[in-house]
Amino acid sequence: MRLAGALAIADGRTLVSADPATVSWLTGHVPEIEWGPSPFSAPPIVVLGPDGTVRLVVSEDETEGLHENVEAVTFPGFALEDVDRRGRAIELALSLLDGRVAGALASLYGELARIELDDVGDDLQRARAVKDPNEIAAIRCAIEIADVGQAAARAGLAAGTTELGLWTSVRAAMETAARGRLPVLSDFVTGRRTSDIGGPPGTRTVEAEDFLLVDLVPRVGLYWGDSCATVALGEPPTEVREAHSRVLEALGAAKAATKAGARAGDIDAAARVLVDYPHHTGHGIGLTTHEQPRIVPSSDTVLEPGMVIALEPGCYGDSWGVRVEQVVVVTEDDCDVLSSHDLALQSTT
Amino acid sequence: MRLAGALAIADGRTLVSADPATVSWLTGHVPEIEWGPSPFSAPPIVVLGPDGTVRLVVSEDETEGLHENVEAVTFPGFALEDVDRRGRAIELALSLLDGRVAGALASLYGELARIELDDVGDDLQRARAVKDPNEIAAIRCAIEIADVGQAAARAGLAAGTTELGLWTSVRAAMETAARGRLPVLSDFVTGRRTSDIGGPPGTRTVEAEDFLLVDLVPRVGLYWGDSCATVALGEPPTEVREAHSRVLEALGAAKAATKAGARAGDIDAAARVLVDYPHHTGHGIGLTTHEQPRIVPSSDTVLEPGMVIALEPGCYGDSWGVRVEQVVVVTEDDCDVLSSHDLALQSTT
Repeated sequence: MRLAGALAIADGRTLVSADPATVSWLTGHVPEIEWGPSPFSAPPIVVLGPDGTVRLVVSEDETEGLHENVEAVTFPGFALEDVDRRGRAIELALSLLDGRVAGALASLYGELARIELDDVGDDLQRARAVKDPNEIAAIRCAIEIADVGQAAARAGLAAGTTELGLWTSVRAAMETAARGRLPVLSDFVTGRRTSDIGGPPGTRTVEAEDFLLVDLVPRVGLYWGDSCATVALGEPPTEVREAHSRVLEALGAAKAATKAGARAGDIDAAARVLVDYPHHTGHGIGLTTHEQPRIVPSSDTVLEPGMVIALEPGCYGDSWGVRVEQVVVVTEDDCDVLSSHDLALQSTT
Repeated sequence: MRLAGALAIADGRTLVSADPATVSWLTGHVPEIEWGPSPFSAPPIVVLGPDGTVRLVVSEDETEGLHENVEAVTFPGFALEDVDRRGRAIELALSLLDGRVAGALASLYGELARIELDDVGDDLQRARAVKDPNEIAAIRCAIEIADVGQAAARAGLAAGTTELGLWTSVRAAMETAARGRLPVLSDFVTGRRTSDIGGPPGTRTVEAEDFLLVDLVPRVGLYWGDSCATVALGEPPTEVREAHSRVLEALGAAKAATKAGARAGDIDAAARVLVDYPHHTGHGIGLTTHEQPRIVPSSDTVLEPGMVIALEPGCYGDSWGVRVEQVVVVTEDDCDVLSSHDLALQSTT
């Protein structure tokens, strides 16, 4: 019925839309909205051929749950290297258009896009990476709230609770401290789920010897905080304890390498030589959850004083995963750590 | 420092950006992200003149908290009548451009906007307004979750709790029932704050004779639910009880007028003749929180079977406000009510 309705509107033309509601209506794509646009994606675009073929130009990470008749035409998702996902999405969508085209580019500013302009987007990203004192103070506030959440997660972890039950208490603690509702991006997984690196809290019940991987990214006002810890109940297996020690060492090495003039790629290497993980060593944080400078292999980006960076080495086995994360401000000679949450695998109390 | 950085990049040119991070960076504008784009707004656009003048093209409802040096150039915010806010924003932004222009239109698909296409956006909106049985089932699921939240709010309302404390328990109840995290748009105000029509939960402490206005809009999977009730602790003042009775009558009158073939404007009039309020009588709901058909004065839109509509008359005094809301599906002869939460002002238990 939805397809028939759209075909009637298309009336022999190819139909294209980047309006999120129309995309979801025709394809079943569920946009994640609670924490704003993902830095590792681009808005999907649906293309409906006159013959009823439905194609969705979408990140390779977001093809789950699409209607059966939908063909996913994908651009890269999460990656260590920089990818122009938006550019690739447009290229793919254009390649699917044929004949007369009807559309609703509700999210696209047609007229504004037609003006001649010099693209300075990269310059602006670089400028935004260096924070002024007001911005650092704002990020500090967000990190204090993340610290509150980490303490609540550690204190509340107990056999018999569910991930979701613990999560709601953690969010409540952060919102109470911030005196209002907060957008919060998070990984909140226990037991074997930690081997997935991350994921939302689910219905799993915490068991006696479990551990929790908790990554909290709250926005307070305009700025985001970020923090991660792994917390064990009882005595974790030896390989988990050893991995956690290596990850802490890697975090220490990354911090030791972080100062004005350092190459981002060298910081990445300093941590990664101790333990490897299928993600970045760190990333800038501020007005978005993940921005310049990216601490990834081979990056030639040179750090400047005032850059604010989340460092988050991890280690993941077949049935477990551990990660720790702190946020630092780059200074002339080293870096100041803004995070103050407990990083210990086992609480001493 | 931020302004100086941007001026250096602009280098004598006018700078324009619709990238949300750049907009926030230069103006202090805080985008609401937890529940997706507002149907009563459009993305703001910042224009920085070569002389350092910062202008923000923004909804008149979103000018709070801007940096002191920022001039807001506004387009209409919430309104009963239909407004092309996006078109107005583009027009305003174009009028501010002068000379050479540099920019980062990160949220704008330039290439895609250049293709020739027939705009069928309105047709798609009309088509999306009529839901098929799968969509109605999905909306029903979201409304069941809203019902759970309403019950939790009613049960938890007690003197001494804060709005925020009660809110976190309501959200937890909904997420537990849905077995996962949920985007939730809400109004959650008590006491005198109800006269504001809505607003987020704050730090206010509930008092013995208070009442709560609770409007819950959770998204479950792809589809949104919507519900509102007003709940009193103790004995509310006579004028509040009388207003609540009139609002219930208005809801009944709106439902009685809702069936295939009815004019949206007539449904609005049926409710509004009993009690007046500075907002719509209702709105379509589905893939977005507010869509066609809009139940507003003088609308000639004719209802069709399968349209899903939230009806929400209210009444607001100087120090109090009451509102009730149910969601219905339009049928040939009348409408089916999907909501089953308690609408009573005073709980009988």
